[in-house]
Parts: sequence; structure tokens; C-alpha cells
Amino acid sequence: MCRWLAYSGTPVTLQALLYKPAHSLIDQSLHSQLGVESTNGDGFGMGWYGEQEIPALYKSTAPAWNDRNLRELAGSVKAGLIFAHIRASTGTPVQQTNCHPFRHGKWLWMHNGAIAQFQEVKRDLTLAIDPSLYVEIEGSTDSEVFFFLALTLGLEHDPPAAIERAVGLIEHVGHSHGVEHPIQMTVATSNGEKVWAFRYSSAHASRSLFHSADVSTLRDQYPDNPVLQELSGDARLVVSEPLGDLQGAWREVPESCCVIVHGAEEELRPFAPTAP
Amino acid sequence: MCRWLAYSGTPVTLQALLYKPAHSLIDQSLHSQLGVESTNGDGFGMGWYGEQEIPALYKSTAPAWNDRNLRELAGSVKAGLIFAHIRASTGTPVQQTNCHPFRHGKWLWMHNGAIAQFQEVKRDLTLAIDPSLYVEIEGSTDSEVFFFLALTLGLEHDPPAAIERAVGLIEHVGHSHGVEHPIQMTVATSNGEKVWAFRYSSAHASRSLFHSADVSTLRDQYPDNPVLQELSGDARLVVSEPLGDLQGAWREVPESCCVIVHGAEEELRPFAPTAP
Amino acid sequence: MCRWLAYSGTPVTLQALLYKPAHSLIDQSLHSQLGVESTNGDGFGMGWYGEQEIPALYKSTAPAWNDRNLRELAGSVKAGLIFAHIRASTGTPVQQTNCHPFRHGKWLWMHNGAIAQFQEVKRDLTLAIDPSLYVEIEGSTDSEVFFFLALTLGLEHDPPAAIERAVGLIEHVGHSHGVEHPIQMTVATSNGEKVWAFRYSSAHASRSLFHSADVSTLRDQYPDNPVLQELSGDARLVVSEPLGDLQGAWREVPESCCVIVHGAEEELRPFAPTAP
Amino acid sequence: MCRWLAYSGTPVTLQALLYKPAHSLIDQSLHSQLGVESTNGDGFGMGWYGEQEIPALYKSTAPAWNDRNLRELAGSVKAGLIFAHIRASTGTPVQQTNCHPFRHGKWLWMHNGAIAQFQEVKRDLTLAIDPSLYVEIEGSTDSEVFFFLALTLGLEHDPPAAIERAVGLIEHVGHSHGVEHPIQMTVATSNGEKVWAFRYSSAHASRSLFHSADVSTLRDQYPDNPVLQELSGDARLVVSEPLGDLQGAWREVPESCCVIVHGAEEELRPFAPTAP
Repeated sequence: MCRWLAYSGTPVTLQALLYKPAHSLIDQSLHSQLGVESTNGDGFGMGWYGEQEIPALYKSTAPAWNDRNLRELAGSVKAGLIFAHIRASTGTPVQQTNCHPFRHGKWLWMHNGAIAQFQEVKRDLTLAIDPSLYVEIEGSTDSEVFFFLALTLGLEHDPPAAIERAVGLIEHVGHSHGVEHPIQMTVATSNGEKVWAFRYSSAHASRSLFHSADVSTLRDQYPDNPVLQELSGDARLVVSEPLGDLQGAWREVPESCCVIVHGAEEELRPFAPTAP
Repeated sequence: MCRWLAYSGTPVTLQALLYKPAHSLIDQSLHSQLGVESTNGDGFGMGWYGEQEIPALYKSTAPAWNDRNLRELAGSVKAGLIFAHIRASTGTPVQQTNCHPFRHGKWLWMHNGAIAQFQEVKRDLTLAIDPSLYVEIEGSTDSEVFFFLALTLGLEHDPPAAIERAVGLIEHVGHSHGVEHPIQMTVATSNGEKVWAFRYSSAHASRSLFHSADVSTLRDQYPDNPVLQELSGDARLVVSEPLGDLQGAWREVPESCCVIVHGAEEELRPFAPTAP
Repeated sequence: MCRWLAYSGTPVTLQALLYKPAHSLIDQSLHSQLGVESTNGDGFGMGWYGEQEIPALYKSTAPAWNDRNLRELAGSVKAGLIFAHIRASTGTPVQQTNCHPFRHGKWLWMHNGAIAQFQEVKRDLTLAIDPSLYVEIEGSTDSEVFFFLALTLGLEHDPPAAIERAVGLIEHVGHSHGVEHPIQMTVATSNGEKVWAFRYSSAHASRSLFHSADVSTLRDQYPDNPVLQELSGDARLVVSEPLGDLQGAWREVPESCCVIVHGAEEELRPFAPTAP
Repeated sequence: MCRWLAYSGTPVTLQALLYKPAHSLIDQSLHSQLGVESTNGDGFGMGWYGEQEIPALYKSTAPAWNDRNLRELAGSVKAGLIFAHIRASTGTPVQQTNCHPFRHGKWLWMHNGAIAQFQEVKRDLTLAIDPSLYVEIEGSTDSEVFFFLALTLGLEHDPPAAIERAVGLIEHVGHSHGVEHPIQMTVATSNGEKVWAFRYSSAHASRSLFHSADVSTLRDQYPDNPVLQELSGDARLVVSEPLGDLQGAWREVPESCCVIVHGAEEELRPFAPTAP
């Protein structure tokens, strides 16, 4: 169970997002305050949309706080849509193929949470993945299976509907194996234009999820904050745990909701699994 | 496609096997002469039966020639039944979960070769694995799927028969996908008492496999060879490529054959896949 | 700044020491209670005296809690004198050559603490190392320089006297660079027969150090504790942080002291740096 | 002993340089034809000048042919001045701090070759490094000591003169230790504007070094070559081994020479060590 960050806005260096803020994602890798585990040292990954349509990935099994390449890239790479994720394994091996974000074509996916008793339901869920997608599975996590289920069920056409179907299927399969609360999730996905972020759990007691308030308002309130000054007015962040210590900077995403970020526009929608 | 070594005999250090012989396995990691690839630098693994019934494993994604821990262990660990394997990836990621030998309970398994067009047949083969074994799959190689198929089909009760069934199934599934020559293999497996080694390929043009001649005879012929002097009379080696430069030390395992090593006794049997 | 453990006694598996106790060293790698940092995830190392006079080493840059090879070795390797160390870097790179224990011939060395403002004094201290030892330096830590200084000043002949001289030199060089409190340390060293452990700091506010009470007494007190039952009567542990939750099991080593463990015998001596 | 490439010209992706050419640097990591070792699998590094004055670095201890992050970055990062280096260790550990290129401020440095009997001369050479630079040494290679000697002797002001002094010092110290041929080298260094490349050895039998012929001429000769079409007219490559199979594309740098590349201009100068 993990921590993640999704950024969309004018291109910034990763440094501005990952290292500069008080309580940054790198800092959370050592000292998370809201996560289930306080240490997220089981690998790291980021994806960013650059000049190509296909996003680039950097993944490492080293703890993020110690990864020198990450620090170099953070100072060098600039992008307008960035996903970053720090991992605390729930049992599956620490290897690059288990690091988020996962990618399929131009789509990125990252997840904090777990499919409950995954070893028991893994085979049924994996069988539900379309055979043409099945061969792309490289790792052994629940999060990657979840991604390929969502792709199978239409992620590329209607992300909220596809994820509602995928979660419905996961709950159905879990219940049929006697699992009371089959899923716990915050998820972010993107096609390079929009970001969709979801907060849901079968027990209706979901992990934390926040999105940023209007940056221009914040910048007026905090004229001395260097991170805010680097961000454009249409910059939007969705994070599993607030960065920094700015009063009023973060709004909690409500239970069973989806946030859609498209440029400066945000839309909040209810999220409800669709039974198969 | 890889290089491997299986040793059974009086306990020796790994050093005697891995580093001392001319053209040792470590040397082969840089300069294989008989392998399809001359460099086998995509990870390394070894398994050994010590005081516990369950064999211990050491796996690394670093090239074997540079792994300091391997050098340390080789000087420190002594065992009477040892598997060692150097990997040259045929496409799947370089990660510990893809390193041989694979383990299930007290069973070890290592493979040189490939299931042809694995991405096309992977799903069908994986579905044929018993669901109770399916959850133990950790990596993404054809070799691990092959192991779990053999376990599903009775490896723990009759290894040659189970592997004949597994290969029969792999050929059947391959042919049904239009693959002309579905498998290429040398395989070694053990339960800690016996070693079974197999040489087979659908095209009847299999990778090389050798077993050692009688060590006591050799010791008489080469009284100055330090490795031979360390080995007991009942020591037996099965290798994908001969170690050292001893004339008469190595006998080739014939095509479509199985060698069974049990103490000083060896048995050679024909191997023929069983169609499902 | 790190956590470490030194064991001497009847041969045990590392598992008994590293994984079984409540608040084990592995557990401390995630959640240290007494250390300066709560996470010690910047590498791991252990050294053990087996059949050879030269101890074997296993070092890894992965966090200890996630290292599968460590778990395998812990179940397989048995030794009567074991050093284990988890690292929290104070700035130097995370690489195997910076992992403790360090080794020279049959000597092992591990350190928790720091030489203050090491970058400023490093050159002077390194120059004081005997040229024949200088070439053995492989990493970039203060701890390794400290070890080679102690070797230069007679560690192999009289460890307490040599370390008193080394610390005296470190304090002299530090003071000449305007450093108020040049060293902070708990150190363990061994030649395979005895263990010497030191607690000292220039500010007389040293990191914690504990040694175990008499194991046979404890075993009588706690007949149900599985770890105690595996240990022999002459087993002795010196640790930077107590393992387990046994009342009376641990005695604090006083400030500015050295503990010498030789079989079941322990000696406590005052420690005072010798100015050069 | 290693292989390297220096590119200067209109910004290109690394992919165009590292993966596309026949006999590319990645290909050389497995199958070098002119190097002393045929496998260069002991780490990889690259440095590039992006928007910041300080170049960015990416280093990895994995063999280059298998590094997925390298493949991702190669498709994503574009730069107009790029250094890339694949390492075959001559004995020093495989760790990121031993990977080239080395960096000091805006300067990059990479080296193929060796300081002969480095362990014997290391201390004397290291002592000759300016104390303010000494503290920046992170690894344990001869190449990094060479770099810091050159910096000590004026690299930032007059690279050819500084390197002539550094080589003179290395030869002097070597000879005083009875080493017949103290150095073997091809070296590249840059400040982000120019590239200086050197070919020299004490025995006057230096490793190979090539620079590219005029790209526009080549493009006319080979209108179908995709790599050439991506390169601008002022693109210049200096390489330890020719890429591709283009007749007339590569000119050998003569023995004891320095090539200076500045935009489309190239200057060839004699190189002669200056005795201290």
C-alpha cells in the first residue's frame, strides 16, 4: 500500500513536485503520516508525457529517498502530465515489473490499496482479462491485474464506466470466494490529456485522497511559496496524502467518487461499481 | 537460453565447482562456447540441499562474474546436491523471480532452452496449471510455467512420466497455435535425493548436455587436477557445457534421453513426450 | 547511523537471531525505537565465521526487510560468531562497498555513529592509514576509514589500545579542524575468537549499546521463549538496541566502556582515547 | 576497459545514437569487436547537457543491453551534447560511483583504458589531488582519480594542457614505482560547449579512437540511412569503436593526438605529456 501523486498543468520539473514541497512524496517514502505503512521503501516509479504520445517510465526497486538517478531526472525532465508512485509491498516481490505506474499504449495507471485475499481470486480475475491483453502482464501484483481488467472492460473508451465494471467484477469474484470486502483503492489513470482519479472501497472506508485547490488563489495567499510560484494557474494535483503545510490548499475527495481533471477544469462524479 | 550445472556427491564447496575448473560455469557466463548466446549475463541462481529438507536458494540479477556475494557463498557453503544456473534472457525481464532454479517444496527445477512463441501459448499453458499451484507462480518465464505444468502432471510422483506429459501438452498446444517446433530443452530437477536430467527438442536438434564419467577413473588419469581430488568417487555432474579440458571426462547425453543420478548410480532412459 | 548485532555462542542459524525475536534486527530496519533514524533501509550486511579462518560476508543494498536472499541464507547458514548490521546512510552512497561489516584478513568491524564533519577531516585521516592498508579501502564511509586507522594503530595485536589510539587521533584531527565533538560510536570487532564492543562519544552522550544477561538464567525465567531455548548457555549478544521484550535480558553497556566477550566470559573495561 | 561515445550537434534522442545504428554502443556492450574485452557488462552511464548548465547523469550497474530505464530515457531525452559509456571493470567494484561519465560542476569526463598497477600508485596520485577536490571523490577507479588530477592541474582553464600535465604526473609516479608503461587511454571531456577527446598510451600502442566524417557528405552518399537523416550537418561523433557499417564514415584519430570539437569545427592537435 502506497503513496502517489498525479500532476497536470504547465510543464514543471519533477524536482518541483518531488523534492521541494514540505512533506513531499520523497519525504513520504520515509515518513508517511496517513498511509497504512509509515515506510514506502519497496520501489518507486514515475511516468510522464513528453514529446511522444507514449509516456516514458522510470522505475526503480531502490527506495526513492536514495535513488540518485531519480534525483538527476527530477532536475532534468520537464513535463505537463506526471504520475509518481512510491510502493510499500503487500507481499508481492520487489521488482521493477511490480512498480507503478503501469502502461498500455498511451495509458498510465497507478493504485494505492489492495484486492483482498488476492492469491485466492487471482486466477479467476486473470482469466477474465482479454487474451490479447493477457500477454502484456509482466509482474505479479493485484494492481496490474486490476489495470488489465479495466482495459478489458473499456478503459480506453470510458474510464469511469470501465473501472466501475472492473470493480464490480472484483467484488463479485471476491464475494464468491467468501471475501467480505474485496477491494480497497485509490486509483489514477490518464491518456495524456485527462486524469481520472478514484476513491472507493468495498467497506466504504477508503484510503485518503486529495486534490489541490485553485492554484492562483493559493499563490495570492502564499506569495513566498516557491513551489506555488512555479506552477501555472491551471496546475492540478491529485495526491494520496497532502504535500506541504498550506492551509486551504487541499480538498479531500469524498468516498466513492471520481475526480476528472482536464486542464484547469475539474469534475467530481459519484462512483459506483457495476455488477457483472 | 542458459547454461547450468547439477552436482551430486560428497559435500563440496561451490567454489570447487563454480570457480576452480577451467571453463567453469562462471567463465561460461562471459564466454560460453556451446551456447546459443556467448554471454549469459542476465542473472544467476543456485539451489543447494543443506541441513533442511527444503533447499536454499541464492538468486541475483547481476552477472555471475561480478557478484561478490556469490564468491563469498561459494567459499562458505558446502552441500552434497547443488544446482547452479546462469541466464541469458530470451525476452522476459531480468528479475530474481525469473532466475532459475525454481523451487516447490523440496523440488528444484532449471531449464535451458525455450517454449517457442511463448507469448502466444502462455495463456493456454498457464490455464492448464492446477489452481492450487497457479498461485505460486512468481515470475514471467516459460521455464517456470513448464515447471508448474510438470508439477500439475505428477512431477513429485514420477518425474520422467510427468515431464513426458508436460512436454506432450506443450507440443499439443504449440501445434494447435501453428508452432512447428514447440519446445527446446535441457532440464534438471531434483527432490534432494536423486537428480533427473533431460535432453529433448521437438525438432530433435537439442542443446548440448553432458554427464561426467566415473570420477575415480578420472582421478587416476589426472592425479594433479585439484578439482578432481576434492570430489568423492560417487560424485556426478550433469552440465550443459563441459567444464575443464579433461579428455574423456564427459559423455554426451544422447538426444531424447533422460539421465537419472542416484548416488554413484546412473541410469539412462529414452524420453518421449506423451500426447494429452 | 545504524543498528547492529554481534552474536557469539553455539552455532545457530541467522534466522533465530534475525527474524524470530520480537523487535528483531529485521524489524528494526523498518521501525527502530532507539536509533537516530527510525528507518534503516540503506543496505545490510552480515559476516560469519564458518569453516574457514576468513569470515564470509553477505552484503546487499536492498532494505533488509525485503531481501529474499537474506531470508534464504538465514535459514541455511549456521555459525557460532555472527555480525549483522543494518545501515542508515549519513550521506555516503548506498553501495555494497559501504555496507558493514568491513573485513581485513580474519577481522570484522562494524560501526554505528559517525565521524563529525567527515568531509573536512577525511583526507587527513586517510593519510594516516598505513600505505599497505590504504589500497584495501573500497568504499567511501567514515566507518571504513576508522577501521583502517585502527588496523594501522595495532588492532590485530591489542584491539582496545588500538581503538583508543584511533579515536584519540580522530579527536585530535577533528579538534584541529574546529570540530567540537569529533566522534560518536558504538563499534564491534572480532578475530573469530573474541568479540570486542565499544561505546564512546566525544560529547559523552553515546548511542545505546546493550549486552545480554546470562542466557541460562533467562532460559529458566522464560521457559517458553523459542529463541532462548535455541541458544547455548555461553551464548552472548551485544546489540545497539534490545531484541525482544524480556525483562532483565539486557544490560546497558556504560558510557566510555569496552565489553570483551570470550566464550561465556565477559569483561567490562573503561575506554579512554589516547591522544597521538 | 570500456567503450564510449561523445555526440555534439543538433539535439537528438539517445535512441538514435544508442539503439538504431548497426553495431551501436548497446550492441557493443554484448559484442565489442575492437575492445580488449568482448563483453562490457559492468555498468553503464550517460551524461547530457539539457536546459541546466550542469549536465544530468544516468548511471546503472545493470548491463546496458538489459536496462529498461535506459531504453525509456533514450526515447524521451533529447540533447545536443551527450556522453555515453559502457564499462568492463578492470577489477574495481561494479557500483554506480564507479560508472562513467564523472562530473564536476559543468564538466564531464569518461575514459577507456587504465592506469597500470593502479593499486601501487593510487595513494601517491590521490595525494596529488587538491584537498578541495579530494572530498568529491566517490568511487574507487583509476579513471576518477585521473579526472581529479586533471581538474587539479587546470582542466577548467586549458583542457589539453591540464591533461598533458596529469598524464606527465601519472607517468612520473608510475616510473618511480617501476611501472614500464604507466597509462593507456582514450579520454573525452566537455564543458557543455566543446568536446575534447584524447588518444594516448605510454607504450604508443593506444586503444582505438574514431571521429565521424562530415555528416552532410555522408548523408548524400547514404540517402536511405535513418540515423544519418536525423543528424544535422554539424553533428560530430567521437567513438572508441565505429558505429554502423558506413564506408568512409569514420576517420581514426592518430596516436598521441587530441581532437577538439566545437560545433561543426574540428581541430586535431598533437598530445604530449608534460613531466612534472
